[in-house]
Amino acid sequence: MPEVPLLPHVTLVLGGARSGKSTYAEKLVDGTLAGGPPRPALLIATADPADSEHHRDAEMAARIAEHRWRRGRHWLTVEEPLDLAGVLRRHDEGVPILVDCLTLWLSNLLLRGEDLVAATAALADVLAGMHVDVTLVANEVGLGIVPDNALARRFRDEAGRLNMRLARSARRVVFMIAGMPLMMKGTAGG
Amino acid sequence: MPEVPLLPHVTLVLGGARSGKSTYAEKLVDGTLAGGPPRPALLIATADPADSEHHRDAEMAARIAEHRWRRGRHWLTVEEPLDLAGVLRRHDEGVPILVDCLTLWLSNLLLRGEDLVAATAALADVLAGMHVDVTLVANEVGLGIVPDNALARRFRDEAGRLNMRLARSARRVVFMIAGMPLMMKGTAGG
Amino acid sequence: MPEVPLLPHVTLVLGGARSGKSTYAEKLVDGTLAGGPPRPALLIATADPADSEHHRDAEMAARIAEHRWRRGRHWLTVEEPLDLAGVLRRHDEGVPILVDCLTLWLSNLLLRGEDLVAATAALADVLAGMHVDVTLVANEVGLGIVPDNALARRFRDEAGRLNMRLARSARRVVFMIAGMPLMMKGTAGG
Repeated sequence: MPEVPLLPHVTLVLGGARSGKSTYAEKLVDGTLAGGPPRPALLIATADPADSEHHRDAEMAARIAEHRWRRGRHWLTVEEPLDLAGVLRRHDEGVPILVDCLTLWLSNLLLRGEDLVAATAALADVLAGMHVDVTLVANEVGLGIVPDNALARRFRDEAGRLNMRLARSARRVVFMIAGMPLMMKGTAGG
Repeated sequence: MPEVPLLPHVTLVLGGARSGKSTYAEKLVDGTLAGGPPRPALLIATADPADSEHHRDAEMAARIAEHRWRRGRHWLTVEEPLDLAGVLRRHDEGVPILVDCLTLWLSNLLLRGEDLVAATAALADVLAGMHVDVTLVANEVGLGIVPDNALARRFRDEAGRLNMRLARSARRVVFMIAGMPLMMKGTAGG
Repeated sequence: MPEVPLLPHVTLVLGGARSGKSTYAEKLVDGTLAGGPPRPALLIATADPADSEHHRDAEMAARIAEHRWRRGRHWLTVEEPLDLAGVLRRHDEGVPILVDCLTLWLSNLLLRGEDLVAATAALADVLAGMHVDVTLVANEVGLGIVPDNALARRFRDEAGRLNMRLARSARRVVFMIAGMPLMMKGTAGG
């Protein structure tokens, strides 16, 4: 995985499962975290509920539905499980973007045997040139014991590497613990 | 799981396995963290060593014994694996309370097929009305890879949700890392 | 596991898998974190790629090779999977030491059925008397769900206990999240 250039418009919201990272990131992107009225925003959802290879379809669909329910009418949603770079490039105007989530995108690539180096390089290139603010939600998955199976270990390694690369270059990094933000880089205000 | 009202007397001590959360919480509750002499306190232990359905009885019993050994004579202990709201209500006078731990209580409910929404709502109601200080120890379990089995995933989700709800309303939240407290909300002094 | 005496020359760098702890610790030890030219340093590597009992030889060898590639010529490397106390004592002069990593050392001991109490006490004794700076890299492994098998649970408990004991006595403790240091005790400058 190559180095990532500076990403002046990128915020990374990291956290474990059910750490409140999606909720926090949504409020950050649509302006409601600062207490203002909600502003238009675009969600790029990487979950793929129709994927027949997905072992947990029902759970995933329920989760997506819950996410939709939480969001108001000022959100537009685009679903894209694989070509994240392409969809970001096509929407680089007007409204801020939330990608939820990067780790699921990585998992989608890994399960399909895609070239992670190429995909990550393409993503980094697009992120570096974006004009609108992009907030990336990502899972921290490396704080348990070593997984038994090799694929899970590879996924854990790749997810951790991607998080590190993006964190190094992002303008702002937040680590969520039980719904509370820990600012690792930058501030909630910008 | 419904929203939780403000919990002005509640401290949440979060952390992973062997992160020192019980030890820190005990000292916080009995006053020895501040360097004073130990004051009387009540422990509500949610572990259930006699449960025949428990797969790890010996380990759990050893852990409980170790916890007992660490505590001095100024501690009273009540064991209650399920009716946490009831036992809190019955002891809402005189001495501060430590609940160790909330995540095990949730696991007990889940394994028995209890209604988590009702149990959590009852707990939140009681916590909101408490007059004595209550410190809740809880496990953070969402920072590893996605578990293979559905029950573990559900447990992880429910535990994370409960932690988030309580963290949002609690007066003070501490995240433990290797025995060291990271104050997420409030201060060690109050 | 007995209490650990004060460790005035010890830094503990904690983190999950792929959290950037090795890279950060290397820069801390060889002086490049502060921006200066690299200074001579000694790495004590506890990985054991030749161990026939190791189930993940190829992965481990690849990881060690990557670590070697990252380090420059000012690093000397000693490989020692078991007798960490002995090798530390023999190299207590001249250059600062990086131990990477403590958790793997613990795992090596556990898999061989060694006496963890004795080994940890010996390590603590040596660390307390060291004259050169020692930086210990260790894994945080307790933030996922409870592992299914008893050995993994024991490993998780022992690793967490060791981290706590050393963190309490160390001069400096850093927790790594996605390549970013969270100073838990002490400062990056000393």
